[in-house]
Amino acid sequence: MSERAAVLHGVRDLRVDEVEAEPLRPGAVRVAVRATGLCGSDLHYYAEGRNGPNVLRSPTVLGHEASGVVTELGDGADPDLLGRTVAVEPARPCRRCPTCAAGRYNLCPSGRCFGSPPVHGTLRGTLVVDAELVHPVPTEIDPAVSALVEPLAVACWAVRRAEVLSGSSVLVTGAGPIGQLAVAAARAAGAARIVLTDVDARRLATAAGAGADDVLDTTAEQPEAGSFDRQLECSGAPEAVNLAALVPGGAVALVGIPAARPAASDLLAAAQRWEIDVRGCFRYGPGAFRTAVSLLRSGRVDLARMVTGRFPLEQADRALQTALTERDHLKIAVLSEESA
Amino acid sequence: MSERAAVLHGVRDLRVDEVEAEPLRPGAVRVAVRATGLCGSDLHYYAEGRNGPNVLRSPTVLGHEASGVVTELGDGADPDLLGRTVAVEPARPCRRCPTCAAGRYNLCPSGRCFGSPPVHGTLRGTLVVDAELVHPVPTEIDPAVSALVEPLAVACWAVRRAEVLSGSSVLVTGAGPIGQLAVAAARAAGAARIVLTDVDARRLATAAGAGADDVLDTTAEQPEAGSFDRQLECSGAPEAVNLAALVPGGAVALVGIPAARPAASDLLAAAQRWEIDVRGCFRYGPGAFRTAVSLLRSGRVDLARMVTGRFPLEQADRALQTALTERDHLKIAVLSEESA
Amino acid sequence: MSERAAVLHGVRDLRVDEVEAEPLRPGAVRVAVRATGLCGSDLHYYAEGRNGPNVLRSPTVLGHEASGVVTELGDGADPDLLGRTVAVEPARPCRRCPTCAAGRYNLCPSGRCFGSPPVHGTLRGTLVVDAELVHPVPTEIDPAVSALVEPLAVACWAVRRAEVLSGSSVLVTGAGPIGQLAVAAARAAGAARIVLTDVDARRLATAAGAGADDVLDTTAEQPEAGSFDRQLECSGAPEAVNLAALVPGGAVALVGIPAARPAASDLLAAAQRWEIDVRGCFRYGPGAFRTAVSLLRSGRVDLARMVTGRFPLEQADRALQTALTERDHLKIAVLSEESA
Amino acid sequence: MSERAAVLHGVRDLRVDEVEAEPLRPGAVRVAVRATGLCGSDLHYYAEGRNGPNVLRSPTVLGHEASGVVTELGDGADPDLLGRTVAVEPARPCRRCPTCAAGRYNLCPSGRCFGSPPVHGTLRGTLVVDAELVHPVPTEIDPAVSALVEPLAVACWAVRRAEVLSGSSVLVTGAGPIGQLAVAAARAAGAARIVLTDVDARRLATAAGAGADDVLDTTAEQPEAGSFDRQLECSGAPEAVNLAALVPGGAVALVGIPAARPAASDLLAAAQRWEIDVRGCFRYGPGAFRTAVSLLRSGRVDLARMVTGRFPLEQADRALQTALTERDHLKIAVLSEESA
Repeated sequence: MSERAAVLHGVRDLRVDEVEAEPLRPGAVRVAVRATGLCGSDLHYYAEGRNGPNVLRSPTVLGHEASGVVTELGDGADPDLLGRTVAVEPARPCRRCPTCAAGRYNLCPSGRCFGSPPVHGTLRGTLVVDAELVHPVPTEIDPAVSALVEPLAVACWAVRRAEVLSGSSVLVTGAGPIGQLAVAAARAAGAARIVLTDVDARRLATAAGAGADDVLDTTAEQPEAGSFDRQLECSGAPEAVNLAALVPGGAVALVGIPAARPAASDLLAAAQRWEIDVRGCFRYGPGAFRTAVSLLRSGRVDLARMVTGRFPLEQADRALQTALTERDHLKIAVLSEESA
Repeated sequence: MSERAAVLHGVRDLRVDEVEAEPLRPGAVRVAVRATGLCGSDLHYYAEGRNGPNVLRSPTVLGHEASGVVTELGDGADPDLLGRTVAVEPARPCRRCPTCAAGRYNLCPSGRCFGSPPVHGTLRGTLVVDAELVHPVPTEIDPAVSALVEPLAVACWAVRRAEVLSGSSVLVTGAGPIGQLAVAAARAAGAARIVLTDVDARRLATAAGAGADDVLDTTAEQPEAGSFDRQLECSGAPEAVNLAALVPGGAVALVGIPAARPAASDLLAAAQRWEIDVRGCFRYGPGAFRTAVSLLRSGRVDLARMVTGRFPLEQADRALQTALTERDHLKIAVLSEESA
Repeated sequence: MSERAAVLHGVRDLRVDEVEAEPLRPGAVRVAVRATGLCGSDLHYYAEGRNGPNVLRSPTVLGHEASGVVTELGDGADPDLLGRTVAVEPARPCRRCPTCAAGRYNLCPSGRCFGSPPVHGTLRGTLVVDAELVHPVPTEIDPAVSALVEPLAVACWAVRRAEVLSGSSVLVTGAGPIGQLAVAAARAAGAARIVLTDVDARRLATAAGAGADDVLDTTAEQPEAGSFDRQLECSGAPEAVNLAALVPGGAVALVGIPAARPAASDLLAAAQRWEIDVRGCFRYGPGAFRTAVSLLRSGRVDLARMVTGRFPLEQADRALQTALTERDHLKIAVLSEESA
Repeated sequence: MSERAAVLHGVRDLRVDEVEAEPLRPGAVRVAVRATGLCGSDLHYYAEGRNGPNVLRSPTVLGHEASGVVTELGDGADPDLLGRTVAVEPARPCRRCPTCAAGRYNLCPSGRCFGSPPVHGTLRGTLVVDAELVHPVPTEIDPAVSALVEPLAVACWAVRRAEVLSGSSVLVTGAGPIGQLAVAAARAAGAARIVLTDVDARRLATAAGAGADDVLDTTAEQPEAGSFDRQLECSGAPEAVNLAALVPGGAVALVGIPAARPAASDLLAAAQRWEIDVRGCFRYGPGAFRTAVSLLRSGRVDLARMVTGRFPLEQADRALQTALTERDHLKIAVLSEESA
């Protein structure tokens, strides 16, 4: 069986090609993709042919934030999944190494993730996914919104790693989609006060509905020193790590992928003096998708406002170009024919 | 200076007497009491002259769930507190022993708590409280509601000890005031599903507005086995500890004071086989009052519905008798003259 | 290929039969068994045809504490394992369920363990074991001693679950093999003071070399109240859970399989009042075998003293009878021909 | 009463003056000082008149690593302390702020520490210390060795913060006294493999007896990548933070005071990608002195080898000059007349 897929052949060379569907395997299900959200890493591959250390070396289907419908079951897959609308957890660990065995499967050295070359991604007709990695969502939810479960799981994991608790005061740095979802995830975990900052006034303008108690442009104003229990750093700017804003014994979760710049000269000294924990976050560990789905189901987060652009799969190239050039977009979704 | 106080002289012998106000001390503040909520332990002292191992041996002022206004500052107390409306944290630790030093001050072997004989309680005109143990609340909130911060802090601490997280499914056993506040505290911490149970249909009827997803009368129906991450046991009935309801690796927090009955024959075996943690909760540890106050401020919990009876201090005896005999009451408040 | 195996056909009906060797599978290795230590659960199956809820319904090879040599590699198994002497981790989780994904694979509801009927055990010529579940040990170590890695891993996991730390004071109840290994594991984790208790003077007599600071016969004398940070309960007697011995905020790990008797009437009350954690321990979770092997390699524990009986596989029945009737034995090993 | 004290009047201007003894206060004890170990911070004050942000502004008695004998009790102090030989915990928290209440008293913003100007230190005849901050040690131990309990407590706290467990592999960077004690503390906590590194061959030469499995000069050779569970960074060199050496999900404790240099450009990226925790350590929190004393008592650590120089109090200036100029010294002790 063949199907359509948005294949990146080289820098800014994305073509919608006819490709062979993946063969189904035991323990997996086939998912007919309904929607894929575009993310910063997709844009890096598209515009630069690489994302950090990972380089595009052969034509690869892009995309990893997907929702769809289970259409076929591999041997041994839970039959209840058939016909279910699902959000797809895109990273597949080996499940056998000591890292996986210890419950840190997101750090599995041999894990593979949809849309990380050379592994093909979700901008295509169907996916083959381990049954444990599809997470049922209500059918009536807009597929583009269900595809947001993936970045929401990133935010939920950051909240877990940072130990945001009921009553916490939280600083979120970076007002892009992840930062805005981090606000929602922190609120859902009971954060009593949330301040969202960025250095880009236009991006901050998109965050009006994100649910922060305060929104600060840090080119003009700084968050109050010593007044946050936790920081969720979602910008990737090393200088956004703001230990001065934290209480003694506070913690910062690094969610954004830090740019290759030296950290400030006082970073380690401040961490040492006040026993601040700096904790890395990579994708999502145990329970994060479950938490994100429960948040989606609860209706307590307005995720629909975040989908600001929609393109059919055949226009995937235009979708990526739009995401690159129109910075006011929060999330652009690429939709299957049924969903478009 | 003398003031009025509800003094328990013996079993069911509560008199409103004229007593000397406590002298102010360095580091403490004087609080003019506005409201005291009555709690099960007050009823035990009133009806039986004891509460578990603690026995009334001399006339003692009852009460420990209080709100009021700071009217005077001891040496060194934060001047910002003067005139503030506050909820009172009633237990005062020694702050010096290894238990206190380790941050478990609620377990301080030499801690003293308002209303635990022989320490006088809050059913009186004024209290002397360490400045760190008064927690400012908005002035406009009904004093009887602000007094609920104390039992709400019990619930918030249970949520902390049980590690209820965003997305957790939670079983709350016991639909009295603490159980109902535990529902609210678990919801505030992001619990995705909460089932509240009791064996008393009338008590369950009072829980309609508590915010549980389901309410079960366990004389008729059991919660689904293996489907809860956490249990908050608020009934004090040893047989309510329901390890079968929990997932492998789950946890139960013991919030209600367990009755002196043997635990079920399978309790330890089930805990061992499925690595269930059984964790005791005593009052409230670090941060619990802060969390409770932030929840009160947020307006997300309907605490006003819980105050079902109000009596002036001069009628404290009637208040206690009513609490003892009319079991439909959730919380009876005893109010100062200004608040009554 | 056929091989010899000690098959339990019914109560006290153990026969050494000729059986087919298990076929090798991808990701697994074949282990030529050198030694199997006998454990309480083997004796339960032998003498009663059951172990707690698990019942012998068809002839089953017994045994689960094994060491051996890797003689063959399945597809994909690490080639470095070939020829290595290994200790065998006997429980095989599904690796896919949420419990496994969260790193609690020992609680996997569909896990299978050697020697738990109907799963055949290690009292046979060869085993097929997932490559991740064989743990290389020094070749020069006595196979009967290397087989002790399994019960030592139980002890190491208990130490982990109980959070025994450098400087902890630890009460170990139950002076059988697990209790004695718990003493060693707690010492290795830095416990400053360890008291070992039992109610059986003869068993206590075997514990002279276990390394406890004190050994108490609790029929005559009680450990000092309030003086232990942690308890490792290894006897399985519900009444051995000794919360009075613990400091406020202490913890007890349930290692022994608790007998089906009600727990004492003050158990829950004491746990609640002093915020004691009661934590179940089931087999061994992430890292426990690694820790046990490192302890074996270190030479800091005298494991050889624990092997008090040795029988060849052909005399497995005599070995089990001896273990049942001569209670002074700590550990009886059943050895392959090469090792016997 | 007057006594002798080593008072720093300015850069390299240390004089042994006659000063008034501190008045005893309730809850405290008087300690006749027997020995004070010199530490890097003392040398900073002596040579530069400052230590990081803290500046000498008025003549101050130096020293904070002390042992001595309790000679007098303040009101309410435990009478058992009288006559005891003790190690002194030099930092005194307020015990009232939220940071103290949460058990993180070492981070108390208003804490005061002996020998941190303007608070006078331990290079004097007697000290007044809160009763809870003196820790009995065996009388027969050399006072200069008992004074090492303070830096050993630093090391024990680092081990706790880093969560070094039984079986851990640990990288210790920096082979000065703290690094060498970190090796001992990690070993005591059960570390299976410890590698100690430095960039100074002479300092490494002093570490022969420290107990590491390997000692590396990192100007010539690097520790193996991906092979350590934990790093204890004791050098204060930002470039010594070696995330590449750690396993996924590893942790580094910052023990040395980090120099004011930017951290490497890949520090945050590596922490993010592999979920490394970077955890600051400041002095010692709950239980660290207790652990250090238990380690001293156990005799398992050869602390005596670390005391490489001894001077009487009257020669404190020579002691500091020697410490500054002769870099082969591990620990120079300044002794009272009785001990010299």
